[in-house]
Amino acid sequence: MSAITIMAVLQAKEGKEQELFDELQKVISPSRAEEGCIEYTLHQSMDDNGTFAFYETWKDEAALQAHIESTHYQTYRLAVEGLIEKREVHRLHKVAQ
Amino acid sequence: MSAITIMAVLQAKEGKEQELFDELQKVISPSRAEEGCIEYTLHQSMDDNGTFAFYETWKDEAALQAHIESTHYQTYRLAVEGLIEKREVHRLHKVAQ
Repeated sequence: MSAITIMAVLQAKEGKEQELFDELQKVISPSRAEEGCIEYTLHQSMDDNGTFAFYETWKDEAALQAHIESTHYQTYRLAVEGLIEKREVHRLHKVAQ
Repeated sequence: MSAITIMAVLQAKEGKEQELFDELQKVISPSRAEEGCIEYTLHQSMDDNGTFAFYETWKDEAALQAHIESTHYQTYRLAVEGLIEKREVHRLHKVAQ
């Protein structure tokens, strides 16, 4: 089974930018500590400080699933529920070159 | 000046998936060879084979500008003009952690 890369672009609700940013940062280190995590990087848009993006790579589908079911991810999803205007998630494979 | 990360998600026009994929692959090695290129990775969606994504990091704004003005990038943009249904580009900074 091959590695899975996630690109997730998140748009904060108006006035919730900092609150969302704080919650997003909390989930980075526990996610990176997961056994199946290859990379996990948070970004903030240069053009709109309410837009954030995660770029993550997981060893395989099982590792991604374990992440989604983890306590820290579930806590994070609850914490950001009222803070997100729009969320776009892409499940990707890297094209070898 | 800090590094700039680009996330670009591209959707092929119906029936143009393979043609777009071929053109996208051509631009990888000359882009990686550019002096200011830190990373440059192409992805294909697991859920829709007409959706592709670039994840790129450039040393600074000048490096990104040089890339955009490069012959290989200009050639690529011309070659894919009639092949792309939708393009979404985010200019990002990595959040240090």
